[in-house]
Amino acid sequence: MHPKSRNLSTSHINPRHRFIKKDLDVDLLFYNLRKGDISALSKAITLVESTAGGDSAFAKALLKKSLPHSGKSFRLGITGVPGVGKSTFIEALGIQLITADKKVAVLAIDPSSSQSRGSILGDKTRMEELVKSDKAFIRPSPAGATLGGVARKTREAIILCEAAGYDFIIVETVGVGQSETAVHSMTDFFLLLKLAGAGDDLQGIKRGIMEMADAIVINKADGDNESAAQRARREFQNAVHMLPVKSHQFLVRAFTCSAINSSGIEDIHEHLTDFESQTKESHHFQKRREQQELYWFHQTIEDRLKSDFYHKTDVVSRIKNLEQQILKREITAFDAADAILKQS
Amino acid sequence: MHPKSRNLSTSHINPRHRFIKKDLDVDLLFYNLRKGDISALSKAITLVESTAGGDSAFAKALLKKSLPHSGKSFRLGITGVPGVGKSTFIEALGIQLITADKKVAVLAIDPSSSQSRGSILGDKTRMEELVKSDKAFIRPSPAGATLGGVARKTREAIILCEAAGYDFIIVETVGVGQSETAVHSMTDFFLLLKLAGAGDDLQGIKRGIMEMADAIVINKADGDNESAAQRARREFQNAVHMLPVKSHQFLVRAFTCSAINSSGIEDIHEHLTDFESQTKESHHFQKRREQQELYWFHQTIEDRLKSDFYHKTDVVSRIKNLEQQILKREITAFDAADAILKQS
Repeated sequence: MHPKSRNLSTSHINPRHRFIKKDLDVDLLFYNLRKGDISALSKAITLVESTAGGDSAFAKALLKKSLPHSGKSFRLGITGVPGVGKSTFIEALGIQLITADKKVAVLAIDPSSSQSRGSILGDKTRMEELVKSDKAFIRPSPAGATLGGVARKTREAIILCEAAGYDFIIVETVGVGQSETAVHSMTDFFLLLKLAGAGDDLQGIKRGIMEMADAIVINKADGDNESAAQRARREFQNAVHMLPVKSHQFLVRAFTCSAINSSGIEDIHEHLTDFESQTKESHHFQKRREQQELYWFHQTIEDRLKSDFYHKTDVVSRIKNLEQQILKREITAFDAADAILKQS
Repeated sequence: MHPKSRNLSTSHINPRHRFIKKDLDVDLLFYNLRKGDISALSKAITLVESTAGGDSAFAKALLKKSLPHSGKSFRLGITGVPGVGKSTFIEALGIQLITADKKVAVLAIDPSSSQSRGSILGDKTRMEELVKSDKAFIRPSPAGATLGGVARKTREAIILCEAAGYDFIIVETVGVGQSETAVHSMTDFFLLLKLAGAGDDLQGIKRGIMEMADAIVINKADGDNESAAQRARREFQNAVHMLPVKSHQFLVRAFTCSAINSSGIEDIHEHLTDFESQTKESHHFQKRREQQELYWFHQTIEDRLKSDFYHKTDVVSRIKNLEQQILKREITAFDAADAILKQS
């Protein structure tokens, strides 16, 4: 079947196909986006998520228009292993934020979901209340083969959400690969959600996460679990004291909460508000944002230099050969690197 | 004055000039190195440290000969801020090792010392006893403008020391920039030397160091400082429990010692011996070594790709311009990266 005719006859197609027409009106889309029209925001994000060559000029134009209107939200990163209650926590916090008259956007980074197109946040029914509110916008993780690609799409979605007037952006991740570093590098505050016991207090912590966290929240502090959660909170609070002091000089605190009962959420909300106002006053807020911008600039350059190199003809097989020679002590790692760079 | 004539008339010259002669006998140097001749080892390290183009073929040949005889030592990394007592600790541990019939080589990484040619270990008199022993070899930090260059020279010095029969290599660093990561990535065991109090327990810890450490040693646990050191040890031991479990599954322990009184050193020595035998049995030892080899291979490739790119004409000034545009929200970090890569 001809794709165009199919495009007209059914809506069960990849949404990006809608933008392959030449008559996409970026000005109109931007106008509606700025009005806060949720369907325009959805369309805009789909446009930047699309990797089709023909779309990128539209996407660039839209982002260029949106950029001057971006940056005014508070960006909260949340990580935690599956089962820790991220959706319930986001729902509970989101309701509080909306009650405080905020517009909340929830995005996700999950590079493992390239096949399933969004395994986290895919099931929006897990945030029943939030999804019903016209002040909330929830978007599943974009598809993508690489973390870099997924991170870029999420960063660009943040810009669009901000241009659409969302003033509180939550970016969640399940922490596959380096996705926590990516979320940490695009948010103003990075929150680590944990459970007491269940192996999650010790073995479940990945390298570097503790040092990235601006706060640690022990969820499911309810019923029989209450005292274990309090104990875990104290242990984490002590551990945090042994880690390097954050550049924002804001004390890294450990909290407990029961997201399902909405208890403890208010304290966390208040902490976030204090953090925002104090780091804005000390200019750390702006400084972290600027550092993040430059981080993504240089990171993208370096990622591309690497991927261009590793995609050259024969490089992969020659690297495999050299690796074998290194492990057999026939060549030093440095001489092997010299050799492959000289030949490429 | 003509450099050659000066070369003949005085010995106050850069030692590498000695190797610019064509008649360097690599076979003889290697023969003497393998015999354990300290002056041959010194010459060999000077040769690989030399960056003169004419020498690199000799250096490569020597390393190629040495490689099959390398890898049999235990490599211990030590870091700690200035004043923590690294030299005294190395002296105390070194004496114990020599008494246990080990041959000990002490190398240093200090990328800040490119001007002064070796600020750490430069003053060998700080290890009076060790320096007198014919079973010890002490070498100051090599000169070098970049950490990558200094790290490479140190890695190659390790190979030469091992080929010369040294079976215990200590690599120390003061922890400038990323030098701790470099030392961690070239040693079998990474020891963090600390002091109780003096701000060193909290503020003094750099990001990531706690997670890299295979053991933490609180030095100067003597006199009035004894109880504070014990307290610090307990605090660190608790903090370690909150960090991710090491892949070697070997408990990260906190010790106290008084290097100046040689007390507590025996326990640490025993711990290192246990670590070596247990990780060799579990094959983690070999696995970590292999991972390190491949790490240096890929790291060198990536560093060179970056430095080649940043050294291209105009790249630095164009990057500065794009950075300004990013911070003014005229372009996204990603589009800026695309732009500079397309033009280069």
